[in-house]
Order: sequence, then structure tokens, then C-alpha cells
Amino acid sequence: MAMQCSSFRFDIQATDGDARSGEFQTGHGAVQTPVFMPVGTQATVKAASPEVLKSLGSRIILSNTYHLHMRPGEKLIASLGGLHTFMGWDRPILTDSGGYQAFSLAKLVKISDEGLAFSSHLDGSRRFLSPEKALEIQEDLGSDIMMCLDECVAYPSTREYVEASVKRTTLWAQRSLAARRSRSALFGIVQGGVYPDLRIRSAREITAEPFDGVAVGGLSVGEGHNLMMDILDVTMPCLPADKPRYLMGVGTPKDIVEAVARGVDMFDCVLPTRNARNGMLFTRNGKITIKQARYREDPNPPDEQCGCYTCRNFSLAYLRHLYVSREILGSVLNTIHNLYFYLELMSDIRHAISEKRFDNLRKQIKEIYDD
Amino acid sequence: MAMQCSSFRFDIQATDGDARSGEFQTGHGAVQTPVFMPVGTQATVKAASPEVLKSLGSRIILSNTYHLHMRPGEKLIASLGGLHTFMGWDRPILTDSGGYQAFSLAKLVKISDEGLAFSSHLDGSRRFLSPEKALEIQEDLGSDIMMCLDECVAYPSTREYVEASVKRTTLWAQRSLAARRSRSALFGIVQGGVYPDLRIRSAREITAEPFDGVAVGGLSVGEGHNLMMDILDVTMPCLPADKPRYLMGVGTPKDIVEAVARGVDMFDCVLPTRNARNGMLFTRNGKITIKQARYREDPNPPDEQCGCYTCRNFSLAYLRHLYVSREILGSVLNTIHNLYFYLELMSDIRHAISEKRFDNLRKQIKEIYDD
Repeated sequence: MAMQCSSFRFDIQATDGDARSGEFQTGHGAVQTPVFMPVGTQATVKAASPEVLKSLGSRIILSNTYHLHMRPGEKLIASLGGLHTFMGWDRPILTDSGGYQAFSLAKLVKISDEGLAFSSHLDGSRRFLSPEKALEIQEDLGSDIMMCLDECVAYPSTREYVEASVKRTTLWAQRSLAARRSRSALFGIVQGGVYPDLRIRSAREITAEPFDGVAVGGLSVGEGHNLMMDILDVTMPCLPADKPRYLMGVGTPKDIVEAVARGVDMFDCVLPTRNARNGMLFTRNGKITIKQARYREDPNPPDEQCGCYTCRNFSLAYLRHLYVSREILGSVLNTIHNLYFYLELMSDIRHAISEKRFDNLRKQIKEIYDD
Repeated sequence: MAMQCSSFRFDIQATDGDARSGEFQTGHGAVQTPVFMPVGTQATVKAASPEVLKSLGSRIILSNTYHLHMRPGEKLIASLGGLHTFMGWDRPILTDSGGYQAFSLAKLVKISDEGLAFSSHLDGSRRFLSPEKALEIQEDLGSDIMMCLDECVAYPSTREYVEASVKRTTLWAQRSLAARRSRSALFGIVQGGVYPDLRIRSAREITAEPFDGVAVGGLSVGEGHNLMMDILDVTMPCLPADKPRYLMGVGTPKDIVEAVARGVDMFDCVLPTRNARNGMLFTRNGKITIKQARYREDPNPPDEQCGCYTCRNFSLAYLRHLYVSREILGSVLNTIHNLYFYLELMSDIRHAISEKRFDNLRKQIKEIYDD
């Protein structure tokens, strides 16, 4: 731990098989793991105020460095006191490196060992993201947990391409550590596509460095649940037990319980919030597509057992009406429900682990969410 | 009062000049006047949950009969327990008659003494709205205060046309009273365009009937503030002092204080909610157009003195960012602020009247909002 300069701390409190529950400490408070981080891309979790997020029990959110760099810009956010103050969120924030969004949203992307050159998706302006620049932006934002710039390869990619990207990701990870100026936590990212030996190589190289935590990146990009789990099976044993493990951009309820079973501690995903706006609700009885005619006169809430504001106050018929009428309140209420579902699932997972009955919960969720 | 069958009650508690403050009672509780009713067109005040509306101190909302008749239909709402249950709002609801929206939104409108024939703006289906049908829909919805179907003429209209519409409006008012089945309150509507003698004639005819309250309709349709006040000057003295007076679809802060000064008790308007979604904020220091570049780095809230959630937690720079980024939270936070402003303005008006200092408040508001 001597080489780390952050104030980040992680403690495992219980295990059940390979699943673990614990807590990490940041400058903005403690977070229980396994944890799900709602995604607040543009300095807002879409359709949810900080007050709502807190009422749902959200302890940490993710925000996207690429989007904030483009608009309104990290210097402006820094001048206003940092991202926490800017968006009115006083709990921890994890920021990604911006690399994945540059690859997927920007145009005319050119990658070299130096970094990523690309054109803004907003105004076409030419930009450059290096490992050092990605850190600088995240430090300007005042992130609690920063991510190294990595190369997230598409699926499928050739072995040769992925091998080169692993090499570059390790190079960038080392440069990121050297560039760090703040006491914020810094996580390295394991890449390697769907090639087990490259995953193992990447994991060994990344975990050799003094990161505060280790992320598994480049999954949930089209390879499917089973292949994702195969890759976790070979990768997770290579990660140190005493650092948090973050599976980036994942996932469905099934993905989450299966990844927790393999020792993952942290998740983020747009699914609950994006699906909410598209009228898809997660419940303990399965998914609900709210626009379906079958709900037209349904007086029941999405889930009788759910304690969220939406389920305590509104019927499926009303939520369907809001969706069909394109009312903002529909997005707001669906988002509340879906985030409540995800956050309660994580709470249930933590309790199940500490009571050594995680496997039961895992089976239940897999029965309901078999896709 | 013998001819009235509703449980509606109205008491004046204080006066200051022609301005009055009081309270009316409905089956869903009491409402202090003068009151502003947020508009919940499609069974939702846009971007505001019932929980938010209550936290802002909203005691009553308006909902639009035309929209609810079209979608999801009053029979469906009735089968689910009525509009209060459907939208999760247990405080009073006033519904309009649907006539104004049929005139302004529907197509192929044909008016006769029987009623309004028109084509739905949603699916083109042919519909017919009579005074009796408008009452039936509102009773199915479970409205606390129902409005008679009236003919709201365009501005400008010829004297001949307006005279005929006044006659028809009175005919329809009488038929509405005969058609009432529920114990909900029923208000008549005074028409007459901008012709003083027709306004007086309409007021005399409508107030001769045993309505629970009287509305002034057909204003705020393009005639401008001064002409609107001229019409109120001739109309208000014709209205009984012991019934609430409702100025429909009005208005700006200046419209409201000037109308209160003339004895109006009730208002509704889409301005605070619609302008919020368009990035226009009302404050005690004037209007703010949030997209302006001058707010780009502004760390201050919209109004330092405002106690709303938005002003207590967010900067102009953040609200501008949300607006420019088209984030739902921008609409949510701006709506909270604007409704808080309107509802607090009404609270200030009530206190000023009871303390006989309304004229000061009226002057202040007119200085800030001179348009």
C-alpha cells in the first residue's frame, strides 16, 4: 500500500463462496459493496434529482468524463467548485476515463500510443485524449474514483488487435499512475477481449501496479452473458482479493448476480434508467413493457411487493397512460421504480452474502431473468 | 342557496379594497383564495409528481376534460376509481368543460346550439360535446369543481358573433345545471368578448343561475393586459360577492395581481410550467432566460431569496447546462421553481390582503413584471 497516495480504503466484511460484501471509504463517505452505481452521464442521472437518488438509497453515482469534457467543460465545473457542487450531489462520484465514449460517440477517431484523437460529436471540434489528459479532466471534476484511459476493443476483434490493445492499456495504466496529482482513488482496467490468455496477461500487468481497485472492461459489448461469465471465470482469480473489483457497464440482473458470484464488487449500467424512459420496468416478477394494451385498465402497481414511491402510489394503467402520452412524469416515475429495484437488489445481495445464503438469491434472480 | 345541491362552501375572510381572501371547501379539502391552480392537462402537472406538488404547497390543480376524454377516456378513469385515484392526487381538482380545447386543438369543429362536433386531434375520430356530455365526463372523472360548456370566441370577433355566443353560453349554462347529477361544485362562465355591454349581459344571465362560483372566460386570448383589465372593470361589479370568481387561463404575475385587485379569487395558467420547460424562470427580480450565455459560469441560484429545492441546491450555470443538454432534470427543477414562485406569490397576496397592504405588493409585482 506504500505506493498509493489516495485516501481510499476497502474492507471485506463477509464472504459466501467467491461472493464478497464489504465497504470502501472515499472523501465523500462510505459505500457498501456489492454496489450498483446509477449513471449520471451529463452531470445528472437522467430524470432523477439528487434528492430522489438519496431517497432511493443511492450511495455513489457514475458520471461520464467524455460528456462533461465536451459540455460544459471540466474547467467550468472546477471553477464552480467541482462536479459534486455543480450537480448538488455530496456523495461519492466515480468517473470513467472518457475513452469508451470517444470510441463509441465521437467521429474520425485515431488511436496511437500517445492517445485518442477524435472529433466532438457535438460540434466536430478536434480533440485529443491521452492518459494524462483523462486524469487531468477527472481531477478537475473532483472525482472520488478515477479510471485510467484504456482501449476498449470492439467485439469481435482479432487476437492481434486485442493483444496490441492490452499492451497499450498497460502502458497507459502506468502513465496514468505517474500523472496522478490528487488524492482521489485510481482504478486500473483489465482488457483482453474474449481471449482468456490475454485477459490473464492484462490482469497480471494491471494488478502489478499500485491501483486502488481493478476494473474489468471491454465486456457487455455484444459477446453475450455466457461468454462474459467465461471471461470472468478466468480473470477474477488473477485479481487481488483485497481490492475492489469493478465490472464496467454491466448489466442485467442476471449479469449482476452471476458476476457477484464470481467476486465482483461494483457495477454501473444505463439499463435501469434508459429502460425506464423507454417504458420497461424491472420487477421481482419479471420485466414489464408498460405500453402493452394488457395494462390499459390494470389498477395494480408494477409490483405489489415493491416499496418505491411509484408502486405505492400509481397503477400500471396510469403509468401506461403517461408513457403513451409522452409525459415527463412517466420517465420520472419509471426511473424511480427501476433504480429502486436495482438498489434493493444490491442490498438484498449484500444481506444474502453476510448471511451465507447468496446462492438462493442468485437462483431466484436467474429464474426470473433468464436473459 | 336552496337550489344548489353541491357540498361546496365559500367564505370571505378578509378584504382590502376590492381584493378579497377567503376559503372554499370541497369534498377533497379546503382551499385558500386567491389561489393559483397548476395545470395538469393529461392527468399530470407536467414534470411534477403529486409529492412535489404537495411539497410546493399546491392545494388544488386543474385538469383538462378534452384531453382526458380523448385519452385515456373518462370511463376508464372512472373504472379505476376516478381522476384523484388515477393520478394519485387526493386534494381538490377543477376540470374545465373541454370546449376551449375542442375549439383550439380539434379539427373540423362545427358549433350549433346542440353542442360542438369535432374531430379528435389524436386519431381524427368524430366526436360530439354537448353541455350534458361535458358534465357527464366531468362527473365520471370525479371532479370537485366542474365548469359549464361555453363558447369561447376568438379575439377579435364581430359584435354579432359574440352576441350570439353569449346567448348560447347562457342556454348551455342552464342546460348544464339541469344535467348535473353529482354533488360536485358547478361554475358558470361569463363570456362577451371585449364588448362591455355583452359582458354585463352575460354576467347578469349567468349570475341569475344557482352556480357555486362564476368564471370569467374568453380573456387572455390575445386582447392584451389593458383590455383584459378594462373588461374585468365592467364585469366584476356584476358578480355576486359571496361566490368565488375564477379568471380562466390567466396569467402573468402582473395579470394576477391586477385581477386580484379587481376581486378575482381563482386562476389557472400553463405559464409557470410551460415556461419552465422552455427555460424561462420567474423570480422576484424578474424573468430569467436560462439559455443565455451570461449564465454559463454563474454560481448563484435563480433567486437568492427563494426557498425552493432548485434555488437551495443548484446554480444558474447548472440549470443552463441541463437546459442546453436537454436533460429531463432541467424541466423538473425549473418547474419546481416556477410553481414555487407562483404559489408563494399567491400566499403573499393572501397575507397582504388580510393585513390590508395588498396595494404595496401589487405595485412591487407590477414594477418587476411590467409586461
